Amino acid sequence: MKRLAILGSTGSIGQQTLDVVRSFPDRFQVIGLAAGRNAALLQGQIGEFQPKLVSIELASLREGLHGLKCEIRSPEELAAHPEVDLVVIAISGKAGLDPTLAAIRAGKSIALATKEVLVMAGEFVTAEARRHGAQILPIDSEPSAIWQCLRGEGNRIAKLILTASGGPFRHLSPDELSKVTPQQALDHPTWRMGPKVTIDSATLMNKGFEVIESHWLFNIPFDQIEIVVHPQSIVHSMVEFADGSIKAQLSPPDMRLPIQYALFYPERPSSKLPRLDFSFSNSSNVSNISALTFEPPDLEKFPCLKLALEAGRKGGTYPAVLSAADEVAVELFMEHRIGFLDIAKLVEEAMEEHRSISNPSLEEILAADAWARERIPR
Amino acid sequence: MKRLAILGSTGSIGQQTLDVVRSFPDRFQVIGLAAGRNAALLQGQIGEFQPKLVSIELASLREGLHGLKCEIRSPEELAAHPEVDLVVIAISGKAGLDPTLAAIRAGKSIALATKEVLVMAGEFVTAEARRHGAQILPIDSEPSAIWQCLRGEGNRIAKLILTASGGPFRHLSPDELSKVTPQQALDHPTWRMGPKVTIDSATLMNKGFEVIESHWLFNIPFDQIEIVVHPQSIVHSMVEFADGSIKAQLSPPDMRLPIQYALFYPERPSSKLPRLDFSFSNSSNVSNISALTFEPPDLEKFPCLKLALEAGRKGGTYPAVLSAADEVAVELFMEHRIGFLDIAKLVEEAMEEHRSISNPSLEEILAADAWARERIPR
Repeated sequence: MKRLAILGSTGSIGQQTLDVVRSFPDRFQVIGLAAGRNAALLQGQIGEFQPKLVSIELASLREGLHGLKCEIRSPEELAAHPEVDLVVIAISGKAGLDPTLAAIRAGKSIALATKEVLVMAGEFVTAEARRHGAQILPIDSEPSAIWQCLRGEGNRIAKLILTASGGPFRHLSPDELSKVTPQQALDHPTWRMGPKVTIDSATLMNKGFEVIESHWLFNIPFDQIEIVVHPQSIVHSMVEFADGSIKAQLSPPDMRLPIQYALFYPERPSSKLPRLDFSFSNSSNVSNISALTFEPPDLEKFPCLKLALEAGRKGGTYPAVLSAADEVAVELFMEHRIGFLDIAKLVEEAMEEHRSISNPSLEEILAADAWARERIPR
Repeated sequence: MKRLAILGSTGSIGQQTLDVVRSFPDRFQVIGLAAGRNAALLQGQIGEFQPKLVSIELASLREGLHGLKCEIRSPEELAAHPEVDLVVIAISGKAGLDPTLAAIRAGKSIALATKEVLVMAGEFVTAEARRHGAQILPIDSEPSAIWQCLRGEGNRIAKLILTASGGPFRHLSPDELSKVTPQQALDHPTWRMGPKVTIDSATLMNKGFEVIESHWLFNIPFDQIEIVVHPQSIVHSMVEFADGSIKAQLSPPDMRLPIQYALFYPERPSSKLPRLDFSFSNSSNVSNISALTFEPPDLEKFPCLKLALEAGRKGGTYPAVLSAADEVAVELFMEHRIGFLDIAKLVEEAMEEHRSISNPSLEEILAADAWARERIPR
C-alpha cells in the first residue's frame, strides 16, 4: 500500500492520477489532496478518497471544507507529512516549486508532472534531491518514455530523441498563426491536458521545457538531446545508445500510463488502459496503427522552442526567466489580451533584457522569476 | 578479451561477425573458424585472424589447409574447446544442431544465428542449456530486438510483436508468385543475408521460424506472439508489457548490430555502424526516417507462415518436420526443380502425413527430420 499526496488533484493530471488510484484500490491510499480553486470537485474527491489532509489555494474557499473529516493544511505540509510515501506534483507552473522542495527535504519520492520546476530550478532541485536521497520520477509522457527505455541499461547513451506532436498548428502560415485564438489552441489533437501545457504544446514551448527537464532528470548534455515531430503521438520518445541501437516507448496518447508507471515503479501492473494494436483487429479498447511519421521541427515558425533550447544551453537564470515570462504570456493570451505569436515575443524580450547569474542560488532564481513577471505589463 | 569460435565463418553472418571482430581488435580473439566449402575465403580468414583451430566440412578441401599454422578439427571440437568462451553458431540449417549441443554440453555461451536449431529441437536444446548453465544469446535481428526490449524488465510480458519485412513479393498475385525465380527471391529489399534465410524470408517461413525460436528463447506461449509486416525493416520487434506500454528496438537493417550486441553483451560498445537519423541531417552514415508503416501479414498468400505457426502450436516432432521439409524444398527451388509456391506445398504434405511424437527425445527428433527429408522425392 503506497500512501500518496496528490498536489493539484483537481487539474487534468490530478484527476487522471485519481483514475489510476481508483483502478487499484488495494494498492494506494490517498493521504492528502491539494487543489487550487475548484472546491466543488475537491469536495467530491474528499468524499470518495477520504484523505486525512487537504489543501486549497484560494483562501475564501477554505471555509467550505470545514466540517469535513480532514485537516486543512498547506501543500508543503502535505508534501512533507510523515504518513506520505510518494508525492504527486501536478500543480501548474511555478507554484509547484515550494511543495517539490518540501517533499525533497523530507526525503520523499516525487512523481513530477510540473516540468516548470525543473525548467526554472533544475540544477538546484536535482542537487537537493541527491542530497536528501529523494527520487524524482517523471510523470510527463516523454521523460517517462526515456526513463522506460533506460531501464536495465547503463549510462551508454548517445542521444535522447524527444518526440513532439507538433501541436495543432504545425501546418499554419505565420499569418494564420497570428490569428490563432485561445479556444483553437486549447483543442489539442491527441492529448487531454490542462490549459497551460496545452498552449505550451501549441507554441512548442512545452517541447523546449521537456528538453530542459530531460537534461536535468537524466543528466544528458543539451547537444545530445534531439527533437522530432511525430504527429500521431504514439512513440513517446526514444533513446539511442552508444552502439547505435535505438529503443522507443509506444502507447496510445493517454497520460494515465506514465502516471501509473510512476506510481507503481518499478512494478508494471496489469491494467485496463487502452492499448495499441498492431494486429489490426477490431476490438474496442485498442488503437490501430498503420503509419508512424516523423518530420523535423520548424524553429522559425515556432520560436518558443528555439528560445527554450537557447535558455537551456545558456543556463544560469535564463531558464527561470523563460519559464516565468511564458507563464505570464500564456495567461495574457488566454485572457485575449495578446496574440498567439506575442507569447514568443514577450519571452524573447525578457530573455534579451535579462542579465543572467551563473550557478544561481534559490533566492537568485526566485528573483529572476519575479523580475520577469514584473517587467511584462499587465 | 573474449575468445571466439565462429562456426559458419564464410557465410553471411560469419563474415559479418568477423567484421565486428575486426572493428574491436583488442576485445576479441578468434580461437576457431569452421566453414563448409569456401576454402579460399577460409584461407584468407585464417591468414587474417590466425585461429588455433579450423574446420571445413567438405573432406576433399582439408588437404589445402595442411601446412597452415592451425589444427584441423570438427565443428563440435571447436565448439567445446576449453579456450573458447563464446561460440557463434552461423551454420545454415540442421547442420547447426550438433555443434550447438557440443557447445551447450561444454557449458559455453552461444550466440545463435541458426534458428533451425530451436525450430527443430527447441524444447530439447533449451532444457540442455538450462542443465549445463549455457546461455543462448540470439543473433537474429528480431529475437535480438526482443531481448534488448526485455533488458531490465521482469517477466511482465503481455505480448511479443515480431516485425516482418514481408519479403519482396508481398504485393504479387498468386499467379505472379507461382512464377517467381530463385534469383528474384534472392534479391531481398532490405537485408543482406545468406541464401536459405533469404528464400525463407520471401515465403515468410522465416517469420514462422522466428515465432518458434522466440517461444523457446523467451518462454512465451504462442498465443502471446504476434506478427506485423513492417516493410522498412527499421523496427526489429517490440514487446508489450502487462501495463500496456510497448518497447521497440530500432536500427538500420544491418546484421552487424545484433551480432555486436550478442558478442559484447551485457556491454554496449561505441561503434561506427550505420545509424538511424531522426534529425533529417544529410550526413553519410545515417538513414533518414520519415515513415514507419505496419500492415497485417497475409497468411493465405504466404502459407509457409501459417504452416510454421501451426507446427509451433502443435509441437512434438511437427516443427522438426517443418524445418527439414523446408530445407529440402528450398534446395529444390534453388535448383529450379520446383516452383516458388511448391515450397509450401511440399512442407504442407510432409506435415499432413507426419505422425508426431509428443515430448520427443533427440533421437526421435532426428528420426522425424530424416523421415521428412526422405519422403520428398529428389
